[in-house]
Amino acid sequence: MFDANTYTQRRLQLKQQLGGDLILLLGNEEAGMNYQDNWYPFYQDSTFRYYFGLDLAGLTGIIDVDGDEVILFGPEQSLDDVVWTGALPSLASLAVQVGVHKVMPTEKVANYLAGAKNIHYLPPYRPEHQLKLQNWTGKTALEPSLSLIQAVVAQRTIKSDAEIQEIEKAVTYTARMHRSVMQFAREGMKEHEVASEALRYAEATGNLLSFPVICTTQGQILHNHYRGNTLRDGDMLLFDGGIQTAAGYAGDMTRTFPVGPTFTERQRELYQVVLETHEAAMAALKPGMLYKDVHLLACRKLTDGLKQVGLMRGDTEEAVQAGAHTMFFQCGLGHMMGMDVHDMENLGEQYVGYTPELRKSTEFGLKSLRLGRALEPGFVLTVEPGIYIIPELIDMRRNDKVAQQFINFEKLDTYRDFGGVRIEDDLLITETGSRILGEPLERALAEVEAIRQQAL
Amino acid sequence: MFDANTYTQRRLQLKQQLGGDLILLLGNEEAGMNYQDNWYPFYQDSTFRYYFGLDLAGLTGIIDVDGDEVILFGPEQSLDDVVWTGALPSLASLAVQVGVHKVMPTEKVANYLAGAKNIHYLPPYRPEHQLKLQNWTGKTALEPSLSLIQAVVAQRTIKSDAEIQEIEKAVTYTARMHRSVMQFAREGMKEHEVASEALRYAEATGNLLSFPVICTTQGQILHNHYRGNTLRDGDMLLFDGGIQTAAGYAGDMTRTFPVGPTFTERQRELYQVVLETHEAAMAALKPGMLYKDVHLLACRKLTDGLKQVGLMRGDTEEAVQAGAHTMFFQCGLGHMMGMDVHDMENLGEQYVGYTPELRKSTEFGLKSLRLGRALEPGFVLTVEPGIYIIPELIDMRRNDKVAQQFINFEKLDTYRDFGGVRIEDDLLITETGSRILGEPLERALAEVEAIRQQAL
Repeated sequence: MFDANTYTQRRLQLKQQLGGDLILLLGNEEAGMNYQDNWYPFYQDSTFRYYFGLDLAGLTGIIDVDGDEVILFGPEQSLDDVVWTGALPSLASLAVQVGVHKVMPTEKVANYLAGAKNIHYLPPYRPEHQLKLQNWTGKTALEPSLSLIQAVVAQRTIKSDAEIQEIEKAVTYTARMHRSVMQFAREGMKEHEVASEALRYAEATGNLLSFPVICTTQGQILHNHYRGNTLRDGDMLLFDGGIQTAAGYAGDMTRTFPVGPTFTERQRELYQVVLETHEAAMAALKPGMLYKDVHLLACRKLTDGLKQVGLMRGDTEEAVQAGAHTMFFQCGLGHMMGMDVHDMENLGEQYVGYTPELRKSTEFGLKSLRLGRALEPGFVLTVEPGIYIIPELIDMRRNDKVAQQFINFEKLDTYRDFGGVRIEDDLLITETGSRILGEPLERALAEVEAIRQQAL
Repeated sequence: MFDANTYTQRRLQLKQQLGGDLILLLGNEEAGMNYQDNWYPFYQDSTFRYYFGLDLAGLTGIIDVDGDEVILFGPEQSLDDVVWTGALPSLASLAVQVGVHKVMPTEKVANYLAGAKNIHYLPPYRPEHQLKLQNWTGKTALEPSLSLIQAVVAQRTIKSDAEIQEIEKAVTYTARMHRSVMQFAREGMKEHEVASEALRYAEATGNLLSFPVICTTQGQILHNHYRGNTLRDGDMLLFDGGIQTAAGYAGDMTRTFPVGPTFTERQRELYQVVLETHEAAMAALKPGMLYKDVHLLACRKLTDGLKQVGLMRGDTEEAVQAGAHTMFFQCGLGHMMGMDVHDMENLGEQYVGYTPELRKSTEFGLKSLRLGRALEPGFVLTVEPGIYIIPELIDMRRNDKVAQQFINFEKLDTYRDFGGVRIEDDLLITETGSRILGEPLERALAEVEAIRQQAL
């Protein structure tokens, strides 16, 4: 699907955008867990892979705009290596697969860079990048290139048809993993037992996880990697997981479902609020719309719903402007998605999700919104509203005037052990609106309960 | 099982061994896959965990021998963190759990070190370690401490009863994972489908893998992480996998079994050679014995077996001295095991597996033997002989005089597609000999075939 010509064209476009100088793109190295040679599963740097295609460790790409050449740097296989790994394709033959016709050993990178007038590189997000850049440029104070960041973001943000096909595949795998988890969970299991079904699914289908799954009865803990709780009847399980396909594209979905055959009445009410918010937000997506405005629309919809339930009160518009809804929805509505599950997060959210004219807010709530800018056809993004009842936050805000005006603390105190609900899908912005990617996955109350009832 | 007193005693012993100066032990950080906050599963540095117990990222331990104090450095939780992660125990309360009564924020490490006369630290094996050490010591040329390495190796090499219990648990989990994989594999599956059962098992039981599993029909490729081949009737599957328990101890076993219900005649013959070698090697383990001599004994046993099969010829002793057996057995017989699957490999094999008097050989074969030194009660190690038919190696040695003398190339050429067999178990050196750790796992020909026949 991505042939040599694809990569050649991508590099050409980047080269034209930069106009001069030298572009240095670092592939990732194998990462040692507890000693150097005990490797984690390999994840390639997504920008390197976007321009140089190869999913192998130890490679470096240089697009020498001034010198008008492209070089792939890497290791050559030794005779010893052949005994341990079998014969592998040569660096030169790998390079040709991605349209590159000049290769050099990695030891020559520093030397090659010494002749360059101006070197553009991206922000280092792994310690290994920092060490390489320091060693190769001789500088300890690194200066990532803003013009390179902007050019890469501009190019990678608009997904090609071939990329959309690949993302669609990733999301379909993701949806199937979710259904499998929804059918697998049982009362009495530990969260990690349920999560094991996701790990199994990813490996069985020849894929990776695009991020470590969140699989929790404590959905209100947003950064939650603990998986030691036992599933009890009456709990909800929040599962947030995604597949990364062999071609390197990600999916990212969340479903929240009852451990028993049905939601409780209280769960049903709040689930429905999140579901309607999710649908309203998805319906609002279209080119030209600020994603920040979709987020705020979702906040108002959520507030309306919470008012009906009796957990919020007062004027919806005023409540959202005052940030009162962040008692329940502390984070952003969604983010870009592509080769990275938070696409290009390593390049800086301010460049990926915002523009020089639209800066990221520093307010609680909005400061966690990774995407704010106006939507364009070819964007791929998530929509993931939620309600999270965080006891610590209730207590922090109990004496806050704004909160007292809009929050019904008396009722909220009876929800302290509620947990969290999130519903997340992946969408493509089209010429006229949007469409959900991947095979459909149940999300309506009755659909989710039907899966659980059939499973139990 | 490991209480505050355990860690206090371990630190005290280390302190007494060093006698002065300051010991700096780095805990590991979270490692980003494709951007900083998309984390791999966390693996703590094993030496940090041995002395400071805590399985959390971002910690640093200092044993200030001259200043007579122990300090745990780490981050303090912010109010924002509480919203995202829930309330976590404070650094001070974590420290108390491992017997440490002084904590400081990580930002103070450099300042604290500035007052030290002499700083001992271990070799950095992650790029993050190198950056931290450079930043904290102000030196770019790092000098890991040989006396610290030697003291840590001396202490960690002899396993305590509590540690042996934990390793026994890890090996039992490992054995059960193996049995599960042996029952799960089917003709027509891809290797990664079989591997998915191991990933599932590790997560379902609340454990980690101690290393990425090797699950291959191409057992002759020793460094093999590719899992895309399809299992065919007549193939053997080599599965090498281990569990790391929550307490941080590893297991490591290998079994080779037929995809069909029985081995072929050719497979049966060579499997039996490996099995008898494995048993001879295990029987030879006892205090005082050089593991290098056990390795050489295994090489002779293997050569005898290969002579009977007709793949080798000539005098066994001469053949092994000339290294002719490395056509079939290119690597070492085993390695130390403990908190790391290759225990303390990050400290340097020359210090862990050898002594100043017994240096590691540079010969092909012996240079891959990670452990050579005299065995002592309390050592935990693997025994893992194998036969690997590597076509590239056959061709490389075809005109080699030594090989021509001892190898029957005419017959060997008919084995080019044979693959590889390995059998691996984990053992404790006792006062009088050794014992296999963990629940027994089938390894005799008939036992292995019986599992496959029941499964199919």
